[in-house]
Amino acid sequence: GSDASAKAVAARQAILTKPQGSLGRLEEIAAWLARWQGRDMPRLEQVKVFVFAGNHGVTAQGVSAFPPEVTVQMVANFAGGGAAINQLARIAGAQLAVIPLDLEHPTGDFTTGTAMDDDAFLAAVSTGYHAVTEDTDLVCFGEMGIGNTTPAAAISAALFGGGAEKWTGRGTGVDDSGLRRKIAAIEAGLSRHAAALSDPLRVAASLGGRELAAILGGVLAARHRNVPVLLDGFVCTAAAAPLAELHAEGLAHTLAAHVSAEAGHRSLLEALGLAPLLDLGMRLGEGSGACLAVNVVRSALECHAGMASFAEAGVSQE
Amino acid sequence: GSDASAKAVAARQAILTKPQGSLGRLEEIAAWLARWQGRDMPRLEQVKVFVFAGNHGVTAQGVSAFPPEVTVQMVANFAGGGAAINQLARIAGAQLAVIPLDLEHPTGDFTTGTAMDDDAFLAAVSTGYHAVTEDTDLVCFGEMGIGNTTPAAAISAALFGGGAEKWTGRGTGVDDSGLRRKIAAIEAGLSRHAAALSDPLRVAASLGGRELAAILGGVLAARHRNVPVLLDGFVCTAAAAPLAELHAEGLAHTLAAHVSAEAGHRSLLEALGLAPLLDLGMRLGEGSGACLAVNVVRSALECHAGMASFAEAGVSQE
Repeated sequence: GSDASAKAVAARQAILTKPQGSLGRLEEIAAWLARWQGRDMPRLEQVKVFVFAGNHGVTAQGVSAFPPEVTVQMVANFAGGGAAINQLARIAGAQLAVIPLDLEHPTGDFTTGTAMDDDAFLAAVSTGYHAVTEDTDLVCFGEMGIGNTTPAAAISAALFGGGAEKWTGRGTGVDDSGLRRKIAAIEAGLSRHAAALSDPLRVAASLGGRELAAILGGVLAARHRNVPVLLDGFVCTAAAAPLAELHAEGLAHTLAAHVSAEAGHRSLLEALGLAPLLDLGMRLGEGSGACLAVNVVRSALECHAGMASFAEAGVSQE
Repeated sequence: GSDASAKAVAARQAILTKPQGSLGRLEEIAAWLARWQGRDMPRLEQVKVFVFAGNHGVTAQGVSAFPPEVTVQMVANFAGGGAAINQLARIAGAQLAVIPLDLEHPTGDFTTGTAMDDDAFLAAVSTGYHAVTEDTDLVCFGEMGIGNTTPAAAISAALFGGGAEKWTGRGTGVDDSGLRRKIAAIEAGLSRHAAALSDPLRVAASLGGRELAAILGGVLAARHRNVPVLLDGFVCTAAAAPLAELHAEGLAHTLAAHVSAEAGHRSLLEALGLAPLLDLGMRLGEGSGACLAVNVVRSALECHAGMASFAEAGVSQE
């Protein structure tokens, strides 16, 4: 990140026609964009949303309210423009790309084996990594995958402890018995993969999913290519979390777009030291929360770029 | 409000391709728009932002960090397109109208007399009332007026009790001695106008300001003309608060767009039972927080109107 560009933003913010600091987080956002784009005057011409989709062997444990075929059905719905993310990406002025990851071959059920072997994990990471290109000014990551709050909770428990129950919520809406099955599956996964839990990438491979691995790759690529990132909800945040365990500043180029209503997300953001921009009770995934926050980022930039200084406007200062 | 239209929205939300309730407050917002527009399918073609500007006699008590001439200077800045609200209204797709209210004649200093006599108060209310027209689909109210967090705090204390200190913050940034002067001025006002405090409109006239009175008139007109309202920060909310005291449902057609960093706003929203959409540490006024929330409302509507149903998309349900 560029300290110089972040400082240039702070210096300009101080002379714009408003009380010092009165735009609150919008001022921080402008400096964050500048720091991670490496530009004194950041830009938001190319905003992209990637929705990675994957299927999960652990659905065999009865952890989701919806059948697994909904993943491919929703991919078709994205293609047809009928999902929430289609509407939200359009409103955000963002290009949407949906990338299905080998949907015909679900990951392994992590209660009985690893979710992905090394080849499968690296292939998914690589897909995410290569999706993010240098011409991008801001990237949102989202996901679709029936059952994927289960690997997200398993990763969170593996990385941050506290037990399965702390991180397990109702996802798309399981009932009480489904919630118990979900907690039991995660406990079984943590137990089966106990030897892998000290290695963040082994955690992601053993307990995760292809769409989570692709997000991990995409967030890493964004850092290498000077692209600031908006993280979405619980699954997206859990997908990126291993990067924070690998490097203390591993997620410094990301902002948490929102805090989801899914049970574990608030604790996960706290564990990562991320302060969400929005808190609207959403729990849809698809990148929906991230897309909604694009307008906040855009508003921050437009104020920064477009406002007059006290001198330009002839306004008296304190 | 139309119960039938709100119910039509809820029925449609239940068949759209997402887990039940997973769009959180976006689902509530769609129903709220429908209820107060009286349309089963709400629309957001005409979104308007009114910024009323006024000057305040109580600035003689040294309650603001900025000199009073900044009000007219900022009105010129609005006209020139250089203020935050100009950028935010553009991004929100909203028409901005700035309405200065007799800036050459500040209100009376409420520590020594009434802020406005009946004629002045009713003229300002009437200006706001007539600004809101039936062709409007959503209206944001904002304000500009050096010193105006002082009348806002005085109104809040008058209506909800708890003493001046509870409601008094630093506004544009007064130092500790300025804060003490501000509290003392509000205490003097509450004491001087003790006989008026049981009458919400007398409170607004005695302790308020012209831009606050115009907002009160505008919020009332919006109710009469089926226009949902986004309230902005502390001053805007305090301006509208007398309507909630006059009628238990007086602000039911409003949403609190955000909670400001100005000290009294969170308590004021709690007193009014309003749950803010955004919490971004902003404290600028001008309608800035309301404008930022327009995109959230627009996103809610676009999801509601644009998403496919389970049947249309061929997606399996639980």
